Amino acid sequence: MLDNLVNLSTHERLVEVNKALSSGMFVHVRRMLQQLPPEDIALLLESCPHAERKNIWQLTDSEQQGEILEELNEDARDSILALMDTENLVAATEGMDTDDLAYVLSGLNDSAYQEVLAQMDAQDRHRLEQALGYPEDTAGSVMNTDTITLRPDVTIDVVLRYLRLKGELPEATDALYVVNKHDKLIGEVALATLLTVDTASTVMDVMDNTRKSIPVAMAEIEVAKIFERRDLISAPVVDQNDRLLGRITIDDVVDIIREDADHKMMGMAGMDDDEDTFAPILKSTKRRTIWLTVNLGAALLASSVSNMFEATLSEIATLAVLMTIVPSMGGIAGNQTLALVIRGMAVGHIGDSNARTLIMKEAAIGLLNGLIWALLVAVAVVIWKGDVNIGYVIAGAMFINLSVAGLAGVCIPLIMNKLKIDPALAGGMALTTVTDVVGLFSFLGMATIFLRA
Amino acid sequence: MLDNLVNLSTHERLVEVNKALSSGMFVHVRRMLQQLPPEDIALLLESCPHAERKNIWQLTDSEQQGEILEELNEDARDSILALMDTENLVAATEGMDTDDLAYVLSGLNDSAYQEVLAQMDAQDRHRLEQALGYPEDTAGSVMNTDTITLRPDVTIDVVLRYLRLKGELPEATDALYVVNKHDKLIGEVALATLLTVDTASTVMDVMDNTRKSIPVAMAEIEVAKIFERRDLISAPVVDQNDRLLGRITIDDVVDIIREDADHKMMGMAGMDDDEDTFAPILKSTKRRTIWLTVNLGAALLASSVSNMFEATLSEIATLAVLMTIVPSMGGIAGNQTLALVIRGMAVGHIGDSNARTLIMKEAAIGLLNGLIWALLVAVAVVIWKGDVNIGYVIAGAMFINLSVAGLAGVCIPLIMNKLKIDPALAGGMALTTVTDVVGLFSFLGMATIFLRA
Repeated sequence: MLDNLVNLSTHERLVEVNKALSSGMFVHVRRMLQQLPPEDIALLLESCPHAERKNIWQLTDSEQQGEILEELNEDARDSILALMDTENLVAATEGMDTDDLAYVLSGLNDSAYQEVLAQMDAQDRHRLEQALGYPEDTAGSVMNTDTITLRPDVTIDVVLRYLRLKGELPEATDALYVVNKHDKLIGEVALATLLTVDTASTVMDVMDNTRKSIPVAMAEIEVAKIFERRDLISAPVVDQNDRLLGRITIDDVVDIIREDADHKMMGMAGMDDDEDTFAPILKSTKRRTIWLTVNLGAALLASSVSNMFEATLSEIATLAVLMTIVPSMGGIAGNQTLALVIRGMAVGHIGDSNARTLIMKEAAIGLLNGLIWALLVAVAVVIWKGDVNIGYVIAGAMFINLSVAGLAGVCIPLIMNKLKIDPALAGGMALTTVTDVVGLFSFLGMATIFLRA
Repeated sequence: MLDNLVNLSTHERLVEVNKALSSGMFVHVRRMLQQLPPEDIALLLESCPHAERKNIWQLTDSEQQGEILEELNEDARDSILALMDTENLVAATEGMDTDDLAYVLSGLNDSAYQEVLAQMDAQDRHRLEQALGYPEDTAGSVMNTDTITLRPDVTIDVVLRYLRLKGELPEATDALYVVNKHDKLIGEVALATLLTVDTASTVMDVMDNTRKSIPVAMAEIEVAKIFERRDLISAPVVDQNDRLLGRITIDDVVDIIREDADHKMMGMAGMDDDEDTFAPILKSTKRRTIWLTVNLGAALLASSVSNMFEATLSEIATLAVLMTIVPSMGGIAGNQTLALVIRGMAVGHIGDSNARTLIMKEAAIGLLNGLIWALLVAVAVVIWKGDVNIGYVIAGAMFINLSVAGLAGVCIPLIMNKLKIDPALAGGMALTTVTDVVGLFSFLGMATIFLRA
């Protein structure tokens, strides 16, 4: 069993570890964990409730604790940090890459952070303070400073001898950077180039000076777009004077892409993407309150629209039965457009130059959808309720609401974007509020005009 | 202006290109496009409606057309393929990487595909048929076959001389693979290793034999998880006998991750992730029909629940005004849980071993939410409507619906997963149907029992 733990899936491992834990075989669990790479232990920790998490953490190898911390998501990291004292933490973070160190320590409260800082060696402290000097979510905050630089006038032969003397390259190095005497970046030489060109040529001869460098203040999401579009593995980061500051590697970019995707998906449901799958009940409940409060406001707004028509509703109860159909269809149609526009903005398809075209297109789809569904729903309702007049009313309301839904689905995210509000977060709620209010108002309003005795 | 086109954003470029197009400056546009890398032209094409897209395509350099096709998303690719004749296409696809070739040609209908195949040279045809032999969305369908292999007994010195003779490495090569005489993969040597170890050592001495290889039949989404977790740049793909077949590189994995994220986000709104942002109106309308049809079914189901209580509704019209609140809150609460569970399943946090824990946790949050919001909504309604009895009824219904919503939010995706239905696609609709039906039934049901005269 022991030998096979690495080949098991996370959940099979969790079963094994839990089995061993509950029968008190701590030594055995410790040996099991020693076999696993830190990223797998991190996943194991994230996959269990806090009580169990604590037990497993205490059985991990102290050598591995730093690497495990790097791999944990924010919520899980914080729950583990709460279990560690300063001394542990300083030991665990020794020699960590700058960006990872910044990530791990950002989970500490101020006093704990100051304590750890005070116990760190001067060089690590300096690197850390520099890294934390860059605003969160910018290129500076995700870059590493472990670059190897070359001068343009040396020969490849010299470079090769230098590297062989060095004996090791920083992780995920695929290129060395060429800087002039002012530390200005002037090009890069891929490892593949070093292995294939004539060794008598100079760095200047073989370097690639067409590659793009990343400004240190660029938003990380823009960095990810450049990596995606250009198929990069690493890219140099420069200051405003083109001086080389560090490099960003694809593994960090993959994390950025994943986090952004999580953020969008969780955000659409009004959830924080850092939310721990197994967070404590009270904490989770509290976190979900904001969105439910916002929705209660929206729901009461919709109710207050219906309330305007209470007299009509008391006269014709069938309206109450049917009044949820039009808002519901509007919400779905609008959300389809919204999803398309949010994706289009994220990929970079949509800008000022074509916003008009897109609005026209989605408005046309809204009108067409309005016609189709007005007809279908009216037929269904007339068959069901045997009342042609209600059929006319629901058809009219459906046409209005689906037309509005198409327009709202494209205009809401465009406007939010201008206002620097994230449409992936707030767009759905805003849209549904519009389609609910318009749907109820048009349906009950027309019913009041045309159906009341 | 010309010189600066590369530095403009996509939308500034689009404005420039459109300006030049509409004033008939075709030669100028052609020169502008020549300056741009293929991935930027692809983005430009995706960012405009079909008529304009056609004009721009006809001005692209035929040399670049193959690379542009590789970069286009499915819908845009298909719209461009429709503009090309067989001869064009054969010329454009010559020498393409196998996985890209398979991607481009998968947009053709059968007869066009056969025509292209017939005109391809024998080697390309063979490679293509092999690539298309692997099921879609598996490691085999995304791998490249351009690996460099080494034998374990040669020295690094020999390898270095061989590479320098070769003069070029395949794109995104970060490691060479070591195979025995039966073509069985036994390890890999990173480029960084080649540059730093003693050149007198043998491949056997310096190779890494601990890295994981990817089975050719593995689902691409699992491949992406392994790359993410292990921070890989490339990985070898093997058949069931561990024979080396090819390699997968991080740029393809980034595409897989992005597509999966798009698929989830668009899928939640009932949209296809291949949907072209600027697809023609009729095509778009047609595509959105399925989801609207499903929703009409769900909306009619909810109405039929209200219909059971028509007598109650005609007696107390206030119920009609308030009846949308309980379903709405249930939908939001349920969707929060749903998003958490879908994310947790995607990351690998959730399996049989902890499904129970998760169900208990979300059920508890549902109960707690139920208590909190029952109280708050009841107070709001009593203040608004001045009727304590309606307050009791809405509190009861809210408690029931939020409790059910928590359970449904965790159980629906778990069950769908067992049934091999994608919960990111169908989960939201199923959940909202449950919370609508339960919300309306409990609210109107209790009102009928307790409020009717």
